[in-house]
Amino acid sequence: MDQEIIARLRKRMTADGLDAIIAVSPENVTYVTGFVVPSQSLMRWRHAICVVTADGRICMVAIDMEATTVRAHAGIDDLRIYREFTEDPMDKLAEALKDLKLDGSKIGVEMEFLPAKDFATLQRVVPNIQWVAADAIFNQARQVKTTKELELLRSLSKLTDKAIGDTLRAARAGMTEMDLAGLLLSNLLTGGAENYKLMIIASGERSQFPNVGPTGRKLQAGDLIRMEIFGQKKGYLAGICRSAVVGKATAEQEKIWTNLIECKYLVMSMIKPGAKCREIYQRFLEKFSELGFEPISFVGHGIGLHLHEEPYMGQDGDEVLEEGMVGAFEPLVYIPGRMGLQNKDMFCVTNIGCELLSDYTPTDTLLRVG
Amino acid sequence: MDQEIIARLRKRMTADGLDAIIAVSPENVTYVTGFVVPSQSLMRWRHAICVVTADGRICMVAIDMEATTVRAHAGIDDLRIYREFTEDPMDKLAEALKDLKLDGSKIGVEMEFLPAKDFATLQRVVPNIQWVAADAIFNQARQVKTTKELELLRSLSKLTDKAIGDTLRAARAGMTEMDLAGLLLSNLLTGGAENYKLMIIASGERSQFPNVGPTGRKLQAGDLIRMEIFGQKKGYLAGICRSAVVGKATAEQEKIWTNLIECKYLVMSMIKPGAKCREIYQRFLEKFSELGFEPISFVGHGIGLHLHEEPYMGQDGDEVLEEGMVGAFEPLVYIPGRMGLQNKDMFCVTNIGCELLSDYTPTDTLLRVG
Repeated sequence: MDQEIIARLRKRMTADGLDAIIAVSPENVTYVTGFVVPSQSLMRWRHAICVVTADGRICMVAIDMEATTVRAHAGIDDLRIYREFTEDPMDKLAEALKDLKLDGSKIGVEMEFLPAKDFATLQRVVPNIQWVAADAIFNQARQVKTTKELELLRSLSKLTDKAIGDTLRAARAGMTEMDLAGLLLSNLLTGGAENYKLMIIASGERSQFPNVGPTGRKLQAGDLIRMEIFGQKKGYLAGICRSAVVGKATAEQEKIWTNLIECKYLVMSMIKPGAKCREIYQRFLEKFSELGFEPISFVGHGIGLHLHEEPYMGQDGDEVLEEGMVGAFEPLVYIPGRMGLQNKDMFCVTNIGCELLSDYTPTDTLLRVG
Repeated sequence: MDQEIIARLRKRMTADGLDAIIAVSPENVTYVTGFVVPSQSLMRWRHAICVVTADGRICMVAIDMEATTVRAHAGIDDLRIYREFTEDPMDKLAEALKDLKLDGSKIGVEMEFLPAKDFATLQRVVPNIQWVAADAIFNQARQVKTTKELELLRSLSKLTDKAIGDTLRAARAGMTEMDLAGLLLSNLLTGGAENYKLMIIASGERSQFPNVGPTGRKLQAGDLIRMEIFGQKKGYLAGICRSAVVGKATAEQEKIWTNLIECKYLVMSMIKPGAKCREIYQRFLEKFSELGFEPISFVGHGIGLHLHEEPYMGQDGDEVLEEGMVGAFEPLVYIPGRMGLQNKDMFCVTNIGCELLSDYTPTDTLLRVG
């Protein structure tokens, strides 16, 4: 448990006049405890729940079959275990709230995660509690990383970047996207990641599609390869994308890539405390518009326990960057029916500017492989 | 899209007097469309939603940035795209329901998935709709697999089993759990899986913990290794676990393993149409109790688009097996402070008995490696 995180949450509770907040999503339970409850994100009914009170008490509800794992790793004294199938975790939570003398109080809960059925149960079993949405409290607290979080994201960014770069350099015509996927995951895990999210391996004509995974498609000379993955460790994520060409790029591909990398440096030059996200996006759009293709609605986003977090650098982004924020920025183009190219880097806002967390694979020229 | 699935859902809607049902979870959107919307399971606010009406009309709501991917792969004519950040997918859904002349009707929705905030929005924008929970309709429909689903699960089971067996046989003292993880994922993806869920690699004293992933721990002579993974393809999952010993097993480990495999054959012998899940669990308990260790609350569970589905073969399982059901059964023991051993196989209920879908890695004696 990171005491800096608990202190931040308590400060926000006090500001909002809340007696407690309740984490129910996998990200926020990990944010509070520093621990990933193994099957929480895999089975929705296996709720893990953390209550943090304004006066700093912490209580956790977890499932029986993971009781030993949670007890050994989460370091929370007030741990309440419910029996799968026969006990409702919401009843266990209600019991905890009563024991914590919170019946009748004002409590924030993640309304954007808590299923409608479970919220109805809570309203029924502890009807005197005034429920408000606490999603924004968690989201805002999570934007600026603590020292520990930053260390983790820095090393995770480097190893994810290395895994992608090493995999692309091994690509050859005749290999399948699945072959690359196996190699990428092997590189990622032996490099130190524990897991991953959203692996995109899109080659040739498939490079035009956003967010598609690997298939049995064989690489051919002239193919573009878009390879993105979010390496994961202790619940935290680092998202990196690199592109490559099998053999020689066309003049058009070179031109697009040059623009995307100019966009990369432009965005980096603007990242600093006080910078407005919308302005960064608008300057990006000016540069990107030279290509004449359709842009996506953001060029960057925060990242941490979730693969997209606030702030977004987009047309609707009112936020201002602060020291300690971590995110990813990704100049990209999807040309319908033809191809796609993308580069995604991890950054941290320092006291004076931008630290590039993903600095392993060179990007200034489109990587030639095979 | 599998027309057999749509027909089943329509039959259940008619039986329950519903005018439509709405899929909002990644599993059920895939169940209806046959397609995995890439970022739906990754970012909760990127809703993908499918409406199926009792008279067979189908409508889908998806996010702008994946519009091309969904249009190319989901094969749904009535596709409605919402803009991320500025449009609420619930407004788009409400608009669709009005267009489908469903305002004022009785509609089932997944209350165990739909976030409380989104349900509140729906209640506000289409107040005349009578909402009921449709979770059970989807869950029950999904229990008995269609011919297409069974084909997929059969091949996925075999390749997942092979990936684990091949990885364990390559294990040597001095390798880390992460080395094994890289090799396992490489084997799994080059074998034909597209993704995975819940990778458990727990060696030595870590083998006692349920559901823990790989770490940098180095294998030593005498270590037990518990290796479980759910291979994933087209959204469907096959969960297999094998155990091995680095070098020579102790007499106690051999004795435990023999019991677990006797439990495996006992469970297999009881799986057939009409078998009662609780009876299978009770017979398993009798055999398992010879060891004198604490059992977990189920020995098997259904599997398909979710890694655990009904029916559970457990102490609280009222269900009866039917032809076409697919699941996994897993005799296992976690001995606190000491060790764990586990074997998990995939099965299908045939017209007369049990088909073992994971028949690649021999299990009759505890695998010796290294």
